[in-house]
Amino acid sequence: MSTPRLFLDEFLAEGAEIPGTPAQAHHLGTVLRRAAGDAVAVFNPRDGEFAAQIVALRKDRCVFALGARLRAPRDEPDLRLMVAALKRDALDWVVEKATELGAGVIQPVFTRRTVVDRVNGERLAAIARGAAEQCERLSVPEIRPALPLHAALDAWDGAPLLVAAERRGAMPVGRAAAGLSLPCGWLVGPEGGFDGAELDDATRRPFVTAVALGPRILRAETAAVAGLAVLQALAGDWTAN
Amino acid sequence: MSTPRLFLDEFLAEGAEIPGTPAQAHHLGTVLRRAAGDAVAVFNPRDGEFAAQIVALRKDRCVFALGARLRAPRDEPDLRLMVAALKRDALDWVVEKATELGAGVIQPVFTRRTVVDRVNGERLAAIARGAAEQCERLSVPEIRPALPLHAALDAWDGAPLLVAAERRGAMPVGRAAAGLSLPCGWLVGPEGGFDGAELDDATRRPFVTAVALGPRILRAETAAVAGLAVLQALAGDWTAN
Repeated sequence: MSTPRLFLDEFLAEGAEIPGTPAQAHHLGTVLRRAAGDAVAVFNPRDGEFAAQIVALRKDRCVFALGARLRAPRDEPDLRLMVAALKRDALDWVVEKATELGAGVIQPVFTRRTVVDRVNGERLAAIARGAAEQCERLSVPEIRPALPLHAALDAWDGAPLLVAAERRGAMPVGRAAAGLSLPCGWLVGPEGGFDGAELDDATRRPFVTAVALGPRILRAETAAVAGLAVLQALAGDWTAN
Repeated sequence: MSTPRLFLDEFLAEGAEIPGTPAQAHHLGTVLRRAAGDAVAVFNPRDGEFAAQIVALRKDRCVFALGARLRAPRDEPDLRLMVAALKRDALDWVVEKATELGAGVIQPVFTRRTVVDRVNGERLAAIARGAAEQCERLSVPEIRPALPLHAALDAWDGAPLLVAAERRGAMPVGRAAAGLSLPCGWLVGPEGGFDGAELDDATRRPFVTAVALGPRILRAETAAVAGLAVLQALAGDWTAN
């Protein structure tokens, strides 16, 4: 029986007793069938990860007694994903995979060919939290409120942003990523791709570079995951032993 | 209305009339609501891709008249995926994504911690065909019959094979992939990873190199897709403009 990992946005320290959320109480008791006395691990990026024991567990309430610190806080890489608001299943999936791959920020954007008109940020944040608990991250990626693409680009801080631009003779993604270090970002459009004028507006920005992911047509969610993997492998925290 | 692309394992040439499969007839008529006279494109890796017209379409029968060749045959990269037999949804998904990413061969393997005891190769071949039709490939990846891992390694031709081995101080995947060219392969274990002795047996083979995909724990399907993307970007056909 593996030890559940729980993200707790509280001050964590050895010896502290910390309440969990009602959702965590439900998950531990009803889904995982745990009880008072069982072991868990609790974490957040500020304080690190601690061994802990369930000292109280009811339907909607749980309390953990913290033991030894298992992992010190560590900075997650500042790798950012800007992704068109895809259909629900595809976007859910991108958020789960981007969390596993170590994205720190996920910014949904609306583009000309985006077919959905709203993004459920709370739902995506819950998916990111669950994925972070699974993959031994200490942090949960920040899900930014969805913005029109031009507004998200206007608000961008100038870190290098690679954009997946299929079949425009763009630079191969591996060549572009090899020259980068963090922070950097990856921008992926909707099914059907960016509108030409929209892509021109993006690539006119000095921090944006259009890159190609080979001769095949990737689904938007595949391009999102593939690009994050290449950026991590060449510019992110996969480069260290 | 986009033009359906159909994989036809027949001799394709301008002016030829070629029958499709019953499944293609059903898909065109019932799912896509096409009729005689509508345009399609037909392709295979031997002959390339041709513009075509539906000249007959019934419930389980269709015939296409081929027009001009749109694309010459091209060799797909010899990039191979060896993946543990995952649960159905995860393996389906890996096959779809591996097809988009350009894998030429997919070899399911049984490992000590594999939880499924059979793989439906016909189902996976149909998924690969559908993904190839979507992503503008000329070929459909070969789905090999599932084998025990040791048997698949015994049958391997000696091309470099990187294996995802989390948290063993393995070489970063980007560094390992940067030194490769095609043909090469990517080996991913089951949920829960390889058994230690099993991984030792694999890495004792001269063509196998254990590599790491960063400090987080990736789901098997995420590792499969991430590794294929990194190999394509550094050693495969994503390196060309």
